[in-house]
Amino acid sequence: MAPDALMQPPVIILLRPQMGENIGSSARAMKNCGISELRLVAPRDGWPNPLARPMAASGADILDNATVYDDIGSAMHDVVLAFATTARMRDLVKPTTDPRGAAEMSVAKPQSEGRRIAYLFGAERSGMDNDEAVMADYIVSADLNPDFPSLNLGQAVLMMSWEWRMAALRAQSLSDAALDDNWPERATIQERDFFFQRFESLLHDKGFFATKEMAPIVNRNMRAFFTRAEPTKQELQTWHGILSMLMKDS
Amino acid sequence: MAPDALMQPPVIILLRPQMGENIGSSARAMKNCGISELRLVAPRDGWPNPLARPMAASGADILDNATVYDDIGSAMHDVVLAFATTARMRDLVKPTTDPRGAAEMSVAKPQSEGRRIAYLFGAERSGMDNDEAVMADYIVSADLNPDFPSLNLGQAVLMMSWEWRMAALRAQSLSDAALDDNWPERATIQERDFFFQRFESLLHDKGFFATKEMAPIVNRNMRAFFTRAEPTKQELQTWHGILSMLMKDS
Repeated sequence: MAPDALMQPPVIILLRPQMGENIGSSARAMKNCGISELRLVAPRDGWPNPLARPMAASGADILDNATVYDDIGSAMHDVVLAFATTARMRDLVKPTTDPRGAAEMSVAKPQSEGRRIAYLFGAERSGMDNDEAVMADYIVSADLNPDFPSLNLGQAVLMMSWEWRMAALRAQSLSDAALDDNWPERATIQERDFFFQRFESLLHDKGFFATKEMAPIVNRNMRAFFTRAEPTKQELQTWHGILSMLMKDS
Repeated sequence: MAPDALMQPPVIILLRPQMGENIGSSARAMKNCGISELRLVAPRDGWPNPLARPMAASGADILDNATVYDDIGSAMHDVVLAFATTARMRDLVKPTTDPRGAAEMSVAKPQSEGRRIAYLFGAERSGMDNDEAVMADYIVSADLNPDFPSLNLGQAVLMMSWEWRMAALRAQSLSDAALDDNWPERATIQERDFFFQRFESLLHDKGFFATKEMAPIVNRNMRAFFTRAEPTKQELQTWHGILSMLMKDS
């Protein structure tokens, strides 16, 4: 998790947006959530659009700084991870996630100049076509009312922006927790593996396995059990002490 | 968790809404998320409002069925749990939660006729006043950009409706999972306690505790370790087999 997740918002890209009002309300939603970069691909009524500003409220600076592109490819020139928010596509096989999953993936990857993460939104009514959706790494599908799943464009931008913000806030608080001195120190995979080997030797040496076939199954189940408990270094030391005592005994 | 959480949406109450467009976009957001009941308290421009319908899209039926009240008290006549979405109130001490917390609380409580859950939204710009907020059980505060936390009314309704839907979907899937026959059968507390007693006897009998003071600390840490792994009945049986073998040995 990036410790400065809130400082690395994604880029919002609107494909062929039609109504200025919707571009404005998208900017407002972005501003509410701390996202600042807006890119427009071939806006129907040109740009700037006077209908956008009243809806943007304090997001007017986002409109002022919005950049306009002729096609989706140039709008994505520096994008390394893209999420396309759209209803499920026919005839297109793509990994799919939901808004919360997309947000979690977004905050898990650090961005940098020339390596951006983008959320793509299709045009009002017509949505995104297959040639556009194919440019994205993931299709984002929200589990909405099947009788009317179609969100207003500004609402779709708010939903994604809010999910991003919640994920970023959570990543920051986890990251703060990880820096906390009181966080118990987890054993490494290597340390766990060394412990398992000793544990398995003990079971073998003491003749626990009545049949040869039994060993791999019990060993696997015991590994799953110990792994689930997420042992700390301290706990594995205690376990090693127990193993040493039991081994000495035989 | 209610198994039919999705079938028990909250009531949406708009206090003194000003713009018909915002009432319409609230209805659309509700429809998208499967929420159907809209109540309006003293809408500024009367009701019905012709500006609402174009923004409502397929949520027009929600507008048709909306009910209008003169004051907040009568709009809440059958409400037993209310969440007021607003910026933090000065001079008002109320339990506060965030949209996700409000959604989780909402789906955890069954509703019935005459016992409804409501989300309250203040007027555009002026928001909710203290006399209105005091009627709610919880203040819902979203952690938005501190430079511009003010959501458009329709956006606020979408955010709460989406969080409710996600919580309801999750409650339903948890409830389905609980019914699943394949859910591994967890050991009871009693079964765990019996196992711990045998385990502790082994450590004691083998002379693991170098000092008297060491025993309660190690025992407590080991209980914490095993509890964290949430052992199944099957796993405890394997452990009992291991203990029996080790005990026989001495």
